Parts: sequence; structure tokens; C-alpha cells
Amino acid sequence: MSGVTEEERRARAALTRVIEPGDETAGRWLREIGPVALLDALTGTAAAPPGSGARKLAGLRLRAAGVDGAADLATVDALGGRFVCPGDEEWPGQLDGLGDGRPIGLWVRGQAHLRLWALRSVAVVGARACTDYGAHVATGLGAGLADLGWTVVSGAAAGIDGAAHRGALAAEGATVGVLACGVDQPYPRAHTQLIARMAEQGLVLAELPPGGHPTRSRFVLRNRVIAALTRGTVVVEAELRSGSLVTARRAMELGRHTMGVPGPVTSGLSEGVHQLLRGGGVVVTDAAEVVELVGDIGELAPERRIPVLARDLLDPVAARVLDALPARGVADARWVAREAGAGGDVTRSKLVELQSLGFVQRRGAGWELTRPVEAPAGSRRGGP
Amino acid sequence: MSGVTEEERRARAALTRVIEPGDETAGRWLREIGPVALLDALTGTAAAPPGSGARKLAGLRLRAAGVDGAADLATVDALGGRFVCPGDEEWPGQLDGLGDGRPIGLWVRGQAHLRLWALRSVAVVGARACTDYGAHVATGLGAGLADLGWTVVSGAAAGIDGAAHRGALAAEGATVGVLACGVDQPYPRAHTQLIARMAEQGLVLAELPPGGHPTRSRFVLRNRVIAALTRGTVVVEAELRSGSLVTARRAMELGRHTMGVPGPVTSGLSEGVHQLLRGGGVVVTDAAEVVELVGDIGELAPERRIPVLARDLLDPVAARVLDALPARGVADARWVAREAGAGGDVTRSKLVELQSLGFVQRRGAGWELTRPVEAPAGSRRGGP
Repeated sequence: MSGVTEEERRARAALTRVIEPGDETAGRWLREIGPVALLDALTGTAAAPPGSGARKLAGLRLRAAGVDGAADLATVDALGGRFVCPGDEEWPGQLDGLGDGRPIGLWVRGQAHLRLWALRSVAVVGARACTDYGAHVATGLGAGLADLGWTVVSGAAAGIDGAAHRGALAAEGATVGVLACGVDQPYPRAHTQLIARMAEQGLVLAELPPGGHPTRSRFVLRNRVIAALTRGTVVVEAELRSGSLVTARRAMELGRHTMGVPGPVTSGLSEGVHQLLRGGGVVVTDAAEVVELVGDIGELAPERRIPVLARDLLDPVAARVLDALPARGVADARWVAREAGAGGDVTRSKLVELQSLGFVQRRGAGWELTRPVEAPAGSRRGGP
Repeated sequence: MSGVTEEERRARAALTRVIEPGDETAGRWLREIGPVALLDALTGTAAAPPGSGARKLAGLRLRAAGVDGAADLATVDALGGRFVCPGDEEWPGQLDGLGDGRPIGLWVRGQAHLRLWALRSVAVVGARACTDYGAHVATGLGAGLADLGWTVVSGAAAGIDGAAHRGALAAEGATVGVLACGVDQPYPRAHTQLIARMAEQGLVLAELPPGGHPTRSRFVLRNRVIAALTRGTVVVEAELRSGSLVTARRAMELGRHTMGVPGPVTSGLSEGVHQLLRGGGVVVTDAAEVVELVGDIGELAPERRIPVLARDLLDPVAARVLDALPARGVADARWVAREAGAGGDVTRSKLVELQSLGFVQRRGAGWELTRPVEAPAGSRRGGP
């Protein structure tokens, strides 16, 4: 299923502990000589990459001393997680839009298929110290986007981020938290439960290896992953010069849709949003308007390359879930899970994947086949 | 000062009692045969305009029976008002953008020079049943625009309109109320004092003759005058399908700037504004942002034709006010009024006119000459 060798995966895993997220110089070396040679160069057993500055190299070599990719892979494996690399079938190709700043790999917790979930995803971001209005709007957007079959991506932070995730979870929808620390780190503390719930029902991602802690620059650089992963970014509340605006501007640079939910002009927490709206962002007031904008499948070039899977190439659990859906009519996820003999979270996650692949769609609170099952081929009359 | 004969003025005055605002068929006749012949045709003493439908003509002839333009002119004259026609020096040329729907003339109360005030004007419109938020924002916009030397135009209605006018008046600025009834009608009743104050310190305009009462369609058609008179329209609060949105869309059609002040997406009174913003309107959050947009003098074509008056062509009061300003430095309007030996309201009105003509500018709460007075020509050295 993957073109990534185990040696390469270990090297990339190790490099996530050495190279800071978004380091484009190191990203260029990685592109030029590959992960195994780069790790060798940084651990001192191979020549330095061509054109590398001595000072930078020295710094990275200090950090590279004693790194053990295999150990980090084992740690995350024990948590039920995995490490997804460029070249893996699950790698979301749209991250390649970040050029040499693309993540070396992503540490992932959760049962869903990252690439399929990200196909129909929107970022909802905003202020940590949001108002009741902002929290209300973000929760509604999260739930509304989930109801419409979209994955809600955010940063798992306090305020708007958390409200958006919670809205999606409450609607039994798909949500992805992109952390600025390791996937085993409950940060912020107050979101320990929320992050654990996302690791169960959704996905939790990080560029940093297990144990990694957030810093100011890591928060900022995490935002580029949120922007690149999604079809568009909605800012709910943001002060002037806030991190959410950085995410939104990054989304704009990457050619993604950039949206803002307006608020009272008397509120400092809407000032940043209004500035964004005056600078090219689109006014959105609910989930339907967001989907109206981002819903055009043709817009995001990398996705055109992704083939719709043939039914017999589905993984066994997805195939069971698809088979469990009634030939006609709507079923709720719990019913499907029972029929498929699968857990509720797995079933919901597979339903979102099947939706991305075009097999199923949401209908109200339930799910149905995109096309009702036809009678078996042998019973058809006429035809060419 | 005017190319309009007294006979034409009387005929146009009479026609405002016969033809409904915005009637483009009658407007075409007026353009083709002129006001005197059209009035004669409608009062039965002359042939009907070419191509006029019998039914329409009959209706207008019924209304034309017994109209007396001279009497209406006398009524408004007694109120200290006047009737401004196309061809008058005071006629705001940008109204010609309405084509055959342009007003036949405007009944005017107030001391200010309509054309000069309208040169730097912005419409602030919105819901009658506005929220405290909307009223607060409209008042602030009215005051802020006035402080920046702009004329605030609105419909003198309850809610946003009234708040915008009051804000401008409180800042001792220029404001124009465009009524959907006669200029002698205190409508709405609750705004009797406000309208009287505008007739003193600002301007009150109407297409309808004295005694004219408002109807639903007259409110709608009044909006086109507000849209056409101004450089741009700002909608503060509006429900979906509201009259303010009609004004804003009309402004857009006329090539004027169309702006909206966002509000909470949870408020029905901001829904219409957000719809406008999603359809091409520009987000504005304060007066400075409005002026940033409408402030480019070059944008509105008709204004390019208006010459900057030579100093010795100023009317005597304006000339006295200009002379009263100190050669250097800032003076407040009260001080200038005392120096000029003129009333406070007249002085403020003339200062706004002089600003439109480029002689003076606002500085904080006061006024100053645009260019400090030079030494007398005789004392100059050198030169060609």
C-alpha cells in the first residue's frame, strides 16, 4: 500500500525530532538527498548536504545526537497511532503545496483515513479568548459542516477551535485536530478530554514527535498545515494581528478559500475578521454558505488526480460498512454499525471516507447510498 | 445664475404634483418636449406628446386638472424654501445618472448649497426597527463622516436614518434628509423636531410638492434619489428584502460605492447587510473606512465637469466666511461666524461649501484655509 521503505519511515520519524516544522532549507536537503542520507548527514556518518551552512548544520547535528526514529514509532504505535509520510497512500497530497516547507511526515492518532477525510475538509479557526457569540457561531458551524458531510479541521486550542471541534463531534461528524505539540500531549490541559475524544472519533495530527511541546513559532507554523490541508479556512473571531489571521492569509496564498464570519464592529474580537473581509476574504454566515463556496470539487487541483476507488479495492471494514447500508432509503450510523458488526466510531469514520469516495451521502441525520443498488446484471433486459 | 425661465420653473413645479417620482415614460416626454409643452399637453391646451398611451395620458390629465405651480412655489417660498430644477446652478448633476427617471425638480428647505454639499456626500441608510447596536453604529458613522467633512444623506426615517442624521447634527456637520413626502410634512411624526432642525442646520429635500404624502412606492422611489445623489451608500442594519437593500443595489447599478456595516450573524437585522456584502458590497466598520473608499474625487464622472470657483465668484456670505478665517491656523465655526458677522448655521453651511470648492478644510473640531494666505502679489520676488 505504500512506496515508503521502513528505513525511510524511521529516518523521517527521526527527522521530525531534529528539524523544526516548516524549515525550508532542511526541506530542500530532504528533497535533494532523501531522508536516509539526510539523517546520516546530520548524525555525522555521511557527508553534509551540498551547500549547507556550517552553523545551521552544527545546530541540527546537536539536535540529531541520539535520535531514535524506531523508538518514536513504537511509542506512537503503542498509543494506537501511526506515522504517515509522503509516499504513503494515506498522505494528503495537498500538503505538497507547501513546497520544501511541507511536513516531513505526520504523527496521527485516530481510526479515520486522513487523506479521504481531508478531501472534503474546512478549517474553522479563531480566537482563544472568544466571546459567547463566537463560541456559539463556531459550535454551529462545526455541527453544520459535519451535517453537510464535511470534515472540520482546527487547532484544538481554547475558544473557537474547541467549539468548532465540539460542534462537529456533537453532530457525530468528522473532525481533525492539528496540534502544535506531540499527539500524546494534552495541550491545552483543559482540552485533555476533547483531544482524547478526537483521537477516538476523529483524528489528531502533529508534525512534532511524541513528547514534543508547543512554542510560539510552532503554533504559527502549525497553522500552515491547517491552511494547506483544507479546501478553505473560516475565521470566526480574531483580533487584529492574531494567529488565526496568519492561517487565513496562508490559506489565501495557497489558493484556498478564505472566509470570515462577521460580528459587531464594536467588538475587538471581530476586528481581525473584518480586516480579513476587507482584504479579500468572503463573508459567510452559516455552514451552507461555506459549503457553497468550497464545494466545487474541481477547484483544488491535487484532488483531481485521486481516483475514485473501485468497490473491490475498499479496505475490509469500509466494504462491510458499505454492504450494511440498505439498498434504498436512509439508515442511521448506529444501525449501520450493528449491521456491519463494527464499532460506532469506526463505522462513522468509514461512512465519511465512503462519502469522499462517492459511495454514500448524508441525508438528514442518516446515511444512504449515492445510487440505489441496481438489480443484478443477469436480470437486466435489453441493452447493447 | 440659472438657465431656467420662470415659466419653465412654474411648469416643472406643477408637474411634480402630476407625475409620480421615477415615472420614466413621463420623464421621456419631458425630455422630448420640455416642461411647458408637457404641462400644456396634460392640462389639455396642447397636443399629447408623441407616442403617449391614451390610458396613461388620461390618468395624468385627471391629476393635472387645476394644478398651480405658482401657488406651490409661493407655499415653499413662505417656508423659506425653494424649488431647484435641472439647469439651475444648484442642481446636483449626478442625478442626471437616473436618465428619464431623474427628478423633475427638488423642493428644498435649508440654507446650504445642495450641489456643493452633495459633492462630498455619503448615504447612511438602514432599518427603521433597528437594534441599539445599529443605532449606536449609525450615530457614530454620522458623526464620524461629518467630522471628516462629509455630508450625511439619509431618508429621515425612524431607526438608522434618524440616528445617522442626529450623529451628523451633533458633530455640527452637514446632513441632508430626502423625504418621500412634501418638505412641509413632518413624517414620521416622531421626527418633527429632527426634520425642522435639518431644515435649519442642514437640508431637507423632496420630489413631491408641499402637502405630498408618502406611499409605499414613493418610499422605494425616494431611495433612488438617495443612491444617485451620493458617492456611496452604507447600509447599517437591514433585514432581507428591505428598502435599504433596494437603495444599496440601486447605488451599485449607478456605479456608486456600496458598503455595509457587518453585525452579529445571529441578528436578523444584519442578515440583509451580510447578503449585500456577499453580493459585492464592501465591509466598512467606521467612517474612516467609508471615506477611504468614496474619497477618490476622480471616481464619479459628473463631478469632473464642475469647475472650482474663482474666489471672486463666491456668493457674498461665503466670501465673508472665507475672509473671516485666519491666514494661518485653525478657528472654530463659532469664532468664524462672529468674525464674519453671520449666523452659526449659515457659517457652518458655507464652510462645508467652501470645503467642497477646495478653499478650506476641517482640522479636528475647527476649520483652516487649505493653503495659508500668501503675501500680496506685489511683494513677490523673481518669477517670469
